[in-house]
Amino acid sequence: MVNQTPIHPVILCGGSGTRLWPVSRKSLPKPFLPLIGETTLFQQAVRRVTGDARFAAPIVVAGSDHAELIEDQMRGAEYRLIIEPSARNTAPAIALAAAILPADDIMLACPSDHHIADNAAFCSTALAAAELARQDYLVSFGITPDRPETGYGYIQKGKVLPGGFAATRFVEKPDRARAEAYLASGEYYWNGGIFAFRAGALLDELAAHRPAMADAVRQAAAQGHSERARFHPDAGIFDRIKGDSIDYAVMENTARAALVPANMGWSDIGNWATLQDALIADCGDGADNVVQGRADLADCDRVFASTDGPRISAVGLRDICIVVSGGEVLVTTREGAQTVGKLPGAAQQ
Amino acid sequence: MVNQTPIHPVILCGGSGTRLWPVSRKSLPKPFLPLIGETTLFQQAVRRVTGDARFAAPIVVAGSDHAELIEDQMRGAEYRLIIEPSARNTAPAIALAAAILPADDIMLACPSDHHIADNAAFCSTALAAAELARQDYLVSFGITPDRPETGYGYIQKGKVLPGGFAATRFVEKPDRARAEAYLASGEYYWNGGIFAFRAGALLDELAAHRPAMADAVRQAAAQGHSERARFHPDAGIFDRIKGDSIDYAVMENTARAALVPANMGWSDIGNWATLQDALIADCGDGADNVVQGRADLADCDRVFASTDGPRISAVGLRDICIVVSGGEVLVTTREGAQTVGKLPGAAQQ
Repeated sequence: MVNQTPIHPVILCGGSGTRLWPVSRKSLPKPFLPLIGETTLFQQAVRRVTGDARFAAPIVVAGSDHAELIEDQMRGAEYRLIIEPSARNTAPAIALAAAILPADDIMLACPSDHHIADNAAFCSTALAAAELARQDYLVSFGITPDRPETGYGYIQKGKVLPGGFAATRFVEKPDRARAEAYLASGEYYWNGGIFAFRAGALLDELAAHRPAMADAVRQAAAQGHSERARFHPDAGIFDRIKGDSIDYAVMENTARAALVPANMGWSDIGNWATLQDALIADCGDGADNVVQGRADLADCDRVFASTDGPRISAVGLRDICIVVSGGEVLVTTREGAQTVGKLPGAAQQ
Repeated sequence: MVNQTPIHPVILCGGSGTRLWPVSRKSLPKPFLPLIGETTLFQQAVRRVTGDARFAAPIVVAGSDHAELIEDQMRGAEYRLIIEPSARNTAPAIALAAAILPADDIMLACPSDHHIADNAAFCSTALAAAELARQDYLVSFGITPDRPETGYGYIQKGKVLPGGFAATRFVEKPDRARAEAYLASGEYYWNGGIFAFRAGALLDELAAHRPAMADAVRQAAAQGHSERARFHPDAGIFDRIKGDSIDYAVMENTARAALVPANMGWSDIGNWATLQDALIADCGDGADNVVQGRADLADCDRVFASTDGPRISAVGLRDICIVVSGGEVLVTTREGAQTVGKLPGAAQQ
């Protein structure tokens, strides 16, 4: 590794986090909430790559609704902010960042709404991924699975590459039986939504598999304008893009997909139950109830109680999440936590 | 039955209902809440004996804290109100009423915080109990049990009497195994806390088994004063009484205890789970979730959700009671509902 330019972190802020309603809301969605510790998931994503010469200043990609939140939470740090004119999923968002970078620079696309407990492991995985990306691989972080989770996508590993593996197959959320088989096989990893690319390689593969999208992103970037740290792609062109995820648009189609195994205490904090698990792991004191705010728990096991004011009193509960926020009271089983986004309250806000 | 004076209903308002916290509070306890239907349990207890020539105007016994609530909820009906100078349990409260009645009059002591679905059955049971009371029996309503409830006292029946049975044994809340044996035997009834006495007979038995209490009650009544519908026993004398329940002070000791079987859809509405059951029975549409106020229930069975404002959203719950009231949020299993009164919130208010 000689004469390497730093890696450009690309922090994606598109997640709405409706399964974390009633705390996560349109006006203040999941990335911008201090769900674990005193900083927000977005701030943690930024700090993970700050103060380390191997990383350049981050490029943040977000909608205009959240630009001020981001500027506030960045507190004067160096960064660029690409304003998505409209939400078009991850492929156009990542491609916009690629379009404003030199073609040979390495980018690391990271969601802003995940939790990573082990930052050192994150960094060493990022460096391994970048090394493969310099060889024009399109590289996923493959999260080492520790349970037959049915809520995540999986990636199958193939032949050995330096620091990783070829990625032979991307699988959507499997059913329980398949998830168990994947876990037992040792061949599958969770798709953590973190990717390393050479910017030019990503745009080339996008052009090969989604030529209209690649063309529109390139034009929208070329005809965009800057305003201090903000970059505004051309909205008229960008808005006409048919949105798609980077997985569907590129990773499942390219012949050069790779993965680097990542064992870094990762959680997507996808719902209240996974937040509970992450908080238990973060705390590490062996207790299995988690309380945020004023709560009295009597004879409760694996209960998560979080309130922004009103006291919660609970008796005899097992595996229940209680969240009181903004005049809404949510009570769900850990299993039911997956479907909170479909509740009328979550849909209306 | 000839030349009979009407029965004097004595409505006891001493119950605090802490297990129905956070709705039931010191300032507005259980009897004065519209828990089932649009009237309060107290109003229902009064209406049960109103407009029926076999019953005299009721005597209400309550603490001064609740006198205005009672006067408001009586809305100008005819009644007398005995103000207990202090809370001394049911024996002194009932004896006060006996002391202001002619010795040969029949009194029917009724809690004001129970629910009775079948008022006609209540009335016919009251008449049978009064008939035995005229023969100087001290008569309990024996509620026909339909489950091995461990939260109630039980009464064992003995030899047959006209319209009832001798009561041979009063048993405190049994454990599960004994409750099941009682239910299977067919010999036991729940102690519903409803009693018929000849006033003089009650005072005589009290004098026999609790002479100091009987003496103090008689003196407190003799030296009391009236103020419109309110009667104030002498506080200095009454306050020195060592409180006790009518069961302990009289019923367990007298040789003339009797019971009349009562099958009248009775519930003591002792906690949120029993209220849920009473509401399900009252509604009768076969549904097992009960909602009061704004609540969205997804994939829930036997859930009780009651709110005074904030919306409740629930997912995947079984046998859970959720109560939101006055800025407090209670979530309990049906089993845990029995211990709600021991929560810090219930104890503090």
